[in-house]
Amino acid sequence: MIKRKFIYLFALSLFTVINCKAALVQTYQSDKPNEDGYEAWLRYQLVEDAEMLQQYRSMINSVIVAGDSPTIQAISDELSEALPQLLSKQLLFDNSFTDSGNLIIGTSGTSARINALGMSDELSQIGDEGYIIKSATIEGVENIIIAANTDLGLLYGTFAFLRELQTNADISSLSIQSSPKVQYRMLNHWDNLSRLVERGYAGLSLWEWGSLPEYNNPRYTDYARLNASIGINATAVNNVNADPKILTEQFLEKLVTLADAFRPYGIKLFVSINYQSPMRVGGLDTADPLDPDVRQWWKDKADQIYEMIPDFGGFLVKADSEGQPGPFAYDRDHAVGANVLAEAVEPHGGVVIWRAFVYSPEQEDRFREAYDEFVPLDGKFNDNVILQVKNGPIDFQPREPFSPLFGALPNTNTMLELQITQEYFGFDKHLAYQGTLFEEAIDSDTYAKGKGSTVGDVVSGNVFDYEYTGMAGVVNLGNTQNWTGHPFVQSSWYAFGRLAWDYTLTADEIADEWMRMTFTNNERFLDPIGEVMMQSREAGVNYRMPLGLTHLYAQGHHYGPAPWTANLPRPDWTAVYYHKADENGIGFDRTESGSNAVEQYHDEVEAMFRNVNTTPEDYLLWFHHVPWTHEMKSGKTLWEELIHKYYEGVEQVRWMQKKWESVKPFIDEQRFEQVKALLKIQEKDAVRWRNSCVLYFQSLSGLPIPDGLDKPVRDLEYYKSLERTVYVPAPRYND
Amino acid sequence: MIKRKFIYLFALSLFTVINCKAALVQTYQSDKPNEDGYEAWLRYQLVEDAEMLQQYRSMINSVIVAGDSPTIQAISDELSEALPQLLSKQLLFDNSFTDSGNLIIGTSGTSARINALGMSDELSQIGDEGYIIKSATIEGVENIIIAANTDLGLLYGTFAFLRELQTNADISSLSIQSSPKVQYRMLNHWDNLSRLVERGYAGLSLWEWGSLPEYNNPRYTDYARLNASIGINATAVNNVNADPKILTEQFLEKLVTLADAFRPYGIKLFVSINYQSPMRVGGLDTADPLDPDVRQWWKDKADQIYEMIPDFGGFLVKADSEGQPGPFAYDRDHAVGANVLAEAVEPHGGVVIWRAFVYSPEQEDRFREAYDEFVPLDGKFNDNVILQVKNGPIDFQPREPFSPLFGALPNTNTMLELQITQEYFGFDKHLAYQGTLFEEAIDSDTYAKGKGSTVGDVVSGNVFDYEYTGMAGVVNLGNTQNWTGHPFVQSSWYAFGRLAWDYTLTADEIADEWMRMTFTNNERFLDPIGEVMMQSREAGVNYRMPLGLTHLYAQGHHYGPAPWTANLPRPDWTAVYYHKADENGIGFDRTESGSNAVEQYHDEVEAMFRNVNTTPEDYLLWFHHVPWTHEMKSGKTLWEELIHKYYEGVEQVRWMQKKWESVKPFIDEQRFEQVKALLKIQEKDAVRWRNSCVLYFQSLSGLPIPDGLDKPVRDLEYYKSLERTVYVPAPRYND
Repeated sequence: MIKRKFIYLFALSLFTVINCKAALVQTYQSDKPNEDGYEAWLRYQLVEDAEMLQQYRSMINSVIVAGDSPTIQAISDELSEALPQLLSKQLLFDNSFTDSGNLIIGTSGTSARINALGMSDELSQIGDEGYIIKSATIEGVENIIIAANTDLGLLYGTFAFLRELQTNADISSLSIQSSPKVQYRMLNHWDNLSRLVERGYAGLSLWEWGSLPEYNNPRYTDYARLNASIGINATAVNNVNADPKILTEQFLEKLVTLADAFRPYGIKLFVSINYQSPMRVGGLDTADPLDPDVRQWWKDKADQIYEMIPDFGGFLVKADSEGQPGPFAYDRDHAVGANVLAEAVEPHGGVVIWRAFVYSPEQEDRFREAYDEFVPLDGKFNDNVILQVKNGPIDFQPREPFSPLFGALPNTNTMLELQITQEYFGFDKHLAYQGTLFEEAIDSDTYAKGKGSTVGDVVSGNVFDYEYTGMAGVVNLGNTQNWTGHPFVQSSWYAFGRLAWDYTLTADEIADEWMRMTFTNNERFLDPIGEVMMQSREAGVNYRMPLGLTHLYAQGHHYGPAPWTANLPRPDWTAVYYHKADENGIGFDRTESGSNAVEQYHDEVEAMFRNVNTTPEDYLLWFHHVPWTHEMKSGKTLWEELIHKYYEGVEQVRWMQKKWESVKPFIDEQRFEQVKALLKIQEKDAVRWRNSCVLYFQSLSGLPIPDGLDKPVRDLEYYKSLERTVYVPAPRYND
Repeated sequence: MIKRKFIYLFALSLFTVINCKAALVQTYQSDKPNEDGYEAWLRYQLVEDAEMLQQYRSMINSVIVAGDSPTIQAISDELSEALPQLLSKQLLFDNSFTDSGNLIIGTSGTSARINALGMSDELSQIGDEGYIIKSATIEGVENIIIAANTDLGLLYGTFAFLRELQTNADISSLSIQSSPKVQYRMLNHWDNLSRLVERGYAGLSLWEWGSLPEYNNPRYTDYARLNASIGINATAVNNVNADPKILTEQFLEKLVTLADAFRPYGIKLFVSINYQSPMRVGGLDTADPLDPDVRQWWKDKADQIYEMIPDFGGFLVKADSEGQPGPFAYDRDHAVGANVLAEAVEPHGGVVIWRAFVYSPEQEDRFREAYDEFVPLDGKFNDNVILQVKNGPIDFQPREPFSPLFGALPNTNTMLELQITQEYFGFDKHLAYQGTLFEEAIDSDTYAKGKGSTVGDVVSGNVFDYEYTGMAGVVNLGNTQNWTGHPFVQSSWYAFGRLAWDYTLTADEIADEWMRMTFTNNERFLDPIGEVMMQSREAGVNYRMPLGLTHLYAQGHHYGPAPWTANLPRPDWTAVYYHKADENGIGFDRTESGSNAVEQYHDEVEAMFRNVNTTPEDYLLWFHHVPWTHEMKSGKTLWEELIHKYYEGVEQVRWMQKKWESVKPFIDEQRFEQVKALLKIQEKDAVRWRNSCVLYFQSLSGLPIPDGLDKPVRDLEYYKSLERTVYVPAPRYND
């Protein structure tokens, strides 16, 4: 009897403890002050790790910054803002050399102390933008040195050093040497002059054209700081579907204020141009690149711009693509069209970035178009032209194989275009860290010169000898307080910058940096949310377009599912064109028996994709039309695997929700609740995606949903109706 | 010799001192931390007046809030945020009655101490929303009491008390009793469901439809706090050019989250409805108000809404106006059209607010239309219908005479509609405090029942016995951080609220409150900037449309000048229709010899406006077509006076710039620099307005610009070209 009572009491106690613990975890509120996300990853809060804090405080007492330029001022401003908050102590900022803990920043030219350290070998390796951070004893005193060849290198070094502190790294024996692996590390903004942002989900355009040039909004400087901290050194501020007015005097004056705000932070201003500008702005009756008046007009316009903005970057051009004007109207090809612009900016050190995003109605397989159009032009572009190529051959879909253009242009500078803004990943509503996608794209091996010719290797000039190299991220920020709408889109912006600087970094380590800087160094946050970040892109693939499916979006806005989309003026605007699903199977045959797009790849890659058995299953339906009964590696049929993937995507979101709930005590309530609410929306959207696609494909295959998976309660007609009725969370962006 | 040297040295010293002082004033930076304007007037910074700070600290030690409701929680939240920062001291918030400095807040029902004070007489006078703030000795201890009949009254009293502290008022012997003079104190938002805001210049809509209902953005609560602090108790969240989708279940669910956020702050939710909703949402084949199915549909819809939002306010309706659908399509009049909606909401305590903003192509004088349409319907509207009438008969022009509808509807509830957003005052670019305009409108005497029947008296129900009273402000806030774009538009929002509560307050005292709360209590700021605020609206009249001119805007966006606008499909869309300028004179004859719109006014007013000699010169060209040679009171001709006014407007802006420059040391750099830059733009725009109008009118009159005034350098054709080329700082708002 007593034993039973004892067991009962024990069970009762255990039950109580477990529930209380659960209650404690759930109700324990964070005591951290609310944050609105404006500071993004440049948050300077008291260092969390007590041991590291003590180390930092002992090692940093005085800041000595040598030199005198706006960039040096930017360094001083940043350190005087950051260090007192990080270390919660007063520091000396008057360049006094104390007997402990000097942070010394300078070049050999500006700092005698740094010059005396004799670092010319290292400095000769790091170029114009690189930096060295190391411990050094000077006059018997321990110091931390940040050295570079230019003030801009020092700025990058300063942010790198601050990153060490923000990520609670051990700085007792620093030895960092870093220089960027590509030259142009660039953002693209698809901002219309109306301030509506194409594929922007974060409010209106950052650029307040109506108060430029008079008002130098502090936000322009904060934008520059954030970008400089991740090594971004260029930005194109207006939509590639370009309004010619950007080149009018009225707008050039506005651009001067932006350029001035960016310059101390090493960010060059680019603009997107409309190919018809000679007519629309210049009043000429043609835009034929071989017309002498047109050539002269571009020269004069470039001269005018460089008079106002001496370090102007150049032009970004979308031409003869999706209806944008270009040289084709005059029977000139891309190279002829680009070269006239290139000549105009060349005397000023400018470049022309020519986008290779093309697809034409005559092309049977959209996948092939860019390669078919540009490979014949290889070597025909002027030296200061760079082709900008999207990571994949279609358009930033959740998973695309790499574009065959990478590795196919030995004689034409080629840069990589990635999408940060979540046009295809749920706008500002879904958590979908793009670092993993970027990494996947960058690490794709083109085999252009055998194994180890990755896309990253190609665009960094390590496969072919490119004169100019670069990476561009379509970021489409907005005036909402946290820049990006969804707080986690900041992580994709961050990752893009870090990868543009060094494409060999991993998505995992970048996510870790970002979380530490943006949220907390607490492992109880980093572990679960690091997992969440690393899985989030794949979740988005799974509940939308697994196994190599693509382009199943509702047309126009691209927010929700519409895999049934057919009957549009162009087949390559539909969904059915891409999945080609019927009662027998699904997928796009890009092998010899189909469009043979695989031939565009180098042999090893072609071989892999040509064979259904060697094609990685994530890409299966990109390259093969496959029967529903096809056996997958798991033993399931294709049909079963496909459905399981859809269900897995939804389960992944629910798992993400649980992980997020668990970190409530570790971050501020405002950002916690915001992401929690957004995850609710994401779960709801993921279910809609899953059910829409599963029911639609089922209507073709006639096959049952595998046992164990919850059947959708509503039918296909219901989900089709949602395409018409569910609110799309973004305004139209056209004027 | 020595004397000359002495004089020389003295002069030199004087010169040096003067320049140094000037230099000191100019370079002295404020040490105040930068502010982004998000807090608007609810800033809780350390009280600036040392004497008052000491008084407050001695008098406020413990906060005792009686009761238990979301509104009581809102009170506690506000005080625990505000008081420690204002007083820089710890306070007790645990309801302990200490022996000095208790702040006691409660109703007779919730607080025994307050009940014991025996305030039933006073409390019986203040209604459901009023409050009493007074000093009272209880148990030998000095206390401050905030008492009311409801928790909402306590909330209003709390904000009023905080205002005393924020404005550094003496609280040693408080005796405040206040209750609102009109019932519905309401904001209107012309927000489209796309989140583009019609006549909004502050970013996208505050209402994030895409993340509602899941995400209760803290901004909704801050919106509610700001509004409650000025007594706003209702808001219509969507455009009066209404999208029917607002009444779908999908959107009603989203509205629930907004209503929930507003409720603790006493703000009732209204929506604007589209008259065709029975067809567009209900699928009926008519929207005829007398159709039984249509009547039933509105009843059912109202029932559905009130099930979800029990304290829903009602419907705001723009019908048969500017192309919006309405009852006319079914040969029903406004009253019949409104009453079906009124019946639907009446059982739930709701009201229908029916806008009287109409003008039809058949009407010879747009001025007359609203009166001609609505006066015959007086008394035909149900009791719970309120007509909402713009302050003037045209459309929120910089100066309008009051609408003759005020005082002409003895048997129909009539409320006043004012415009806070600067559709006609330079968007987010110009400083133009609207408090003076609001005051002018409110103090206009209709003479409906003899002298002292002002518009304010009418809409507060003191002239006719209205069952429902109200005032509406078209505010069109946005997601930009400071809510309004231009920081000073906040002052118009503030003024609207204060006047809606008590229309006898003056623009001057309201401006003073707002400046103290939003910027500083320093007289060296208040004096010059108070003058600036009080003059700013008139400056905007002067450089645009002096002496009663109106509607000279560029069509569509209304930003810049286009007094030459003619040849549009409707004459009352042009400018020439309004100014009727020719070689002989200018102005619109609204007397007997013209449209006789003056007959719509009561006798005394009619008499004043009928006679060119008794018409106040600010309204001259509203009512009379006058020769250029007409002699004004100043002795100048009309032509000379007109031109002088235009030049005066520009000089006023330059004077405003100087005044602003002088207050640099007294406020934070961020807001100082922003307003400084905006004033540059305003000066540039004022010159464009002046020159465009002066040159245009000169092209008709053939008269010279008076001596002593700088002639425009460019010609009329140049200014006409600017209408086509100058960037208009607002995106299109239509979908």
